[in-house]
Amino acid sequence: MANRQVAFAEISPSEFFYRNRDLAGFSNPARALYSAVRELVENSLDACELFKILPEVTVTVSGLDRDSEEPDPKPYVVTVRDNGPGIDPRYVPNAFGRVFFGSKFLLRQSRGMFGMGGTMAILYGQITTTKPVTVVTSFDGNTTYTFDLMIDIQANRPIVLRRESQHGDGSTGTSVKLTLEGDYFRAAQKIQDYFKQCAMVTPYAKLTHVDPQGRKFPFERGTSAMPNPPEETLPHPYGIDVEAFRRLVKQSTQTSLVKFMSSSFHRVGPKIASQFLQFAGSDPNKNPGELTSEETVRLVEAIHRFDGFLQPDASCLSPLGSEILDAGIRKELQPEFAATSIRPPSAYSGYPFIVEVGLAYGGRVLSPGVKLFRFANRIPLLYDEASDVSWRVISEEIDWKRYRIPPEAPLGIITHVCSTKIPYKTVGKEYLADRPELERELKNAVRDVLRQLSGYLKKKGSMEMVKRKLNIYGKYLPLIARFSTNLAKAKRPPRYGKLLGKRDSPREEQRRIEEYS
Amino acid sequence: MANRQVAFAEISPSEFFYRNRDLAGFSNPARALYSAVRELVENSLDACELFKILPEVTVTVSGLDRDSEEPDPKPYVVTVRDNGPGIDPRYVPNAFGRVFFGSKFLLRQSRGMFGMGGTMAILYGQITTTKPVTVVTSFDGNTTYTFDLMIDIQANRPIVLRRESQHGDGSTGTSVKLTLEGDYFRAAQKIQDYFKQCAMVTPYAKLTHVDPQGRKFPFERGTSAMPNPPEETLPHPYGIDVEAFRRLVKQSTQTSLVKFMSSSFHRVGPKIASQFLQFAGSDPNKNPGELTSEETVRLVEAIHRFDGFLQPDASCLSPLGSEILDAGIRKELQPEFAATSIRPPSAYSGYPFIVEVGLAYGGRVLSPGVKLFRFANRIPLLYDEASDVSWRVISEEIDWKRYRIPPEAPLGIITHVCSTKIPYKTVGKEYLADRPELERELKNAVRDVLRQLSGYLKKKGSMEMVKRKLNIYGKYLPLIARFSTNLAKAKRPPRYGKLLGKRDSPREEQRRIEEYS
Repeated sequence: MANRQVAFAEISPSEFFYRNRDLAGFSNPARALYSAVRELVENSLDACELFKILPEVTVTVSGLDRDSEEPDPKPYVVTVRDNGPGIDPRYVPNAFGRVFFGSKFLLRQSRGMFGMGGTMAILYGQITTTKPVTVVTSFDGNTTYTFDLMIDIQANRPIVLRRESQHGDGSTGTSVKLTLEGDYFRAAQKIQDYFKQCAMVTPYAKLTHVDPQGRKFPFERGTSAMPNPPEETLPHPYGIDVEAFRRLVKQSTQTSLVKFMSSSFHRVGPKIASQFLQFAGSDPNKNPGELTSEETVRLVEAIHRFDGFLQPDASCLSPLGSEILDAGIRKELQPEFAATSIRPPSAYSGYPFIVEVGLAYGGRVLSPGVKLFRFANRIPLLYDEASDVSWRVISEEIDWKRYRIPPEAPLGIITHVCSTKIPYKTVGKEYLADRPELERELKNAVRDVLRQLSGYLKKKGSMEMVKRKLNIYGKYLPLIARFSTNLAKAKRPPRYGKLLGKRDSPREEQRRIEEYS
Repeated sequence: MANRQVAFAEISPSEFFYRNRDLAGFSNPARALYSAVRELVENSLDACELFKILPEVTVTVSGLDRDSEEPDPKPYVVTVRDNGPGIDPRYVPNAFGRVFFGSKFLLRQSRGMFGMGGTMAILYGQITTTKPVTVVTSFDGNTTYTFDLMIDIQANRPIVLRRESQHGDGSTGTSVKLTLEGDYFRAAQKIQDYFKQCAMVTPYAKLTHVDPQGRKFPFERGTSAMPNPPEETLPHPYGIDVEAFRRLVKQSTQTSLVKFMSSSFHRVGPKIASQFLQFAGSDPNKNPGELTSEETVRLVEAIHRFDGFLQPDASCLSPLGSEILDAGIRKELQPEFAATSIRPPSAYSGYPFIVEVGLAYGGRVLSPGVKLFRFANRIPLLYDEASDVSWRVISEEIDWKRYRIPPEAPLGIITHVCSTKIPYKTVGKEYLADRPELERELKNAVRDVLRQLSGYLKKKGSMEMVKRKLNIYGKYLPLIARFSTNLAKAKRPPRYGKLLGKRDSPREEQRRIEEYS
């Protein structure tokens, strides 16, 4: 038999994401520029909020060669500076120069989920321009550290090109400066939208964006009230698997099952622990360290079958709340009417979450039609809308006709999900998977705000009614005309536009047809 | 200033995907069972095809406790056996027990893309049942090796519990047996569909599925003609970035730029290399090892601006071809009419690809309406249809009315993309990103098969015409009835069903409305 050799190789995490950078949101120069900005801003906001520092974040994007008339794509320098707690210099090289090294691996609500966004931005900059990243940071105000770093992509290790320290100016914070091949022309709108929407849900943050023309886009603080920092939480039993259970046993110093259960899990105290162990048929005094594999598996299966565990409470979560959500909507969208719906805490797979939905109706900022604004852990999600659970809910699970909203009305639906683990489908944090529990809460919240809108519209009353009657004729005439045309096999429908005084776009017609069927 | 400490940590690749197994398609027991089956089958088919072995793959799924009447989810034993080339025992532990170790890191068309599907299946089995995976393999027929393996998830290293060797029986191949918490009740349909669709595009493979009841579902070989094995290819200049360029320089033994260019890139010979270097203003005799960072960056920029490089040719690709596609469609869908469209090779970002589209019309297997079957590198894609570029094309970019296809007709559209790099958006290989080049080719191919269908329907002639006229009345009456009801503000539309002798489902009506607007 011929010797058939297959070539095996190993690659590092950074190599993997270098080759598959699409997975992390760095597919092309426009997208990469957006992703670099958002990942660094999200790191800054997370850091500030962890220590309840009123955030001040400035993002500057400028062409590397300012005088250059070169068209996009071309090298851009992206600088993100914050007034956060700074980073201990011992960790700076690894935090920025190593994939899978970071501070986001705890069970706690934060914007960052995978601990690699900043590193990916630096990696992308490096592979398109060979320029190092410069990190300047102070964590105590006394000393400022400056690093020039690159990534050894094949080894997943940082390369420190320069490290200096100087006297600090008394303030803490971090600034990250990287150079990457970007396309600001294509990315500008998304970057602007990102800041606007950030401002909507983070009114206590002062954000400033400086574009390549040097124009400043400030987003001033709307309030000084900050939410409490999110807290780390114990794992919930419903989210546990055998591997996780074994690790908890290994870490635990408890010598009895009942003490182990009541100290390792979220909202499990001695009483519930005893009830569970009785249900599972286990000896509460048994030493957890002596469980066999089989016993462990059976215990974990019992955990998933036992319905006596309390649902996760959301004390570890940091929702926006009605006030902030309403204020943000009013500030950015200036609607005629706004409504909010804050759902009670819920959970999926043992992870607590809270859904908050806002609605903006009318006014002059929104265009006619329904626009969806999605947020997760206070991050705006601007890509892959059609794949997101929120989109599914509003396009498939809401019976719009019930609420009698005029189709030409400008309407914004704002969805925010906060959780210790956001169910992103991709490392690039583009959209949320459709977990049934999430879907259910979103549907209920959207219905709630639509009901509130309905009530407002009813009160608004007869003026609208009369107008709509006139519109009905405007809606049906085109349809009747078309069907008659088809039946009669005429080439063109008769001109009815003059009868109504106006004509809608084909898309408007189409939507109306769908709505009234 | 208070000392504000942030806890940094590092996690291994297996730990990362353990915590984020949703990213890899292992979100819940039903999905995990499906993913385990598909990943292992895809490994087997890739291995066979690489050495042009007519594949024989058997997949057995059985409850761990066969007598158990326990409901799903529960432990299942999944065994996948093939007649492939086997695996060198030196590589077995790492190939299965280590994330980012594998044979899929070359630039070559294969089903596996990320080199981690099999390992994820084993990881999932381990964390839900603590049972090891058993791998039995022979690469020369003389000796058979048996391994029991587990994964040290935190360290990303295999744990070899057992390793034995015995006399072989003369045949080569590999079998993988793992135990995982699965939900066959929920996964059954998708697993069945997976095999059916695999058979559609791999008619030279003999596939057998044995379900938990012991029922055998064989998919016999339709042909013994196998495609040529895919070949590894040189990178194309349009796909190169600075990091990749530097690595090529490092690996190369050439001492002049022109020789380096003409030996490192796909379809770049001395003539084109010279033309390019002239365009770039570089000295063709310069030693590539002496290029500075700046010069490298400028050269790579020039590569992307130079339009003299030849488009990738697809000699390294392995498309299905018209015959196989047509045969597969006819065998599995038994249509009244079938059509295929094979596009010429194209490329995105320097990666060559070929789009092949098939159409099945009528017959008794398909249900009324349009059904999309998606394939990439001969893998059926059964999830996240609405996010896929193919779905986008058929739902947004095809003017269906032009082809006058009766809406109640059963219609299947089959799309297949083969490439050295499939633009998956997720590690779970669920759907393809909408690259413009891909979209364009898909659109052209779908239009082509629809045109062929139109031609067939025309010839089919008057019988259909008469039938449709009768149907038109059936289509319009419900609409007119509804609008009149709305206008008259009656509660219910009048009953017109009896007039027609039949009534369509609301969904049929809806589609008809959309089509005729």
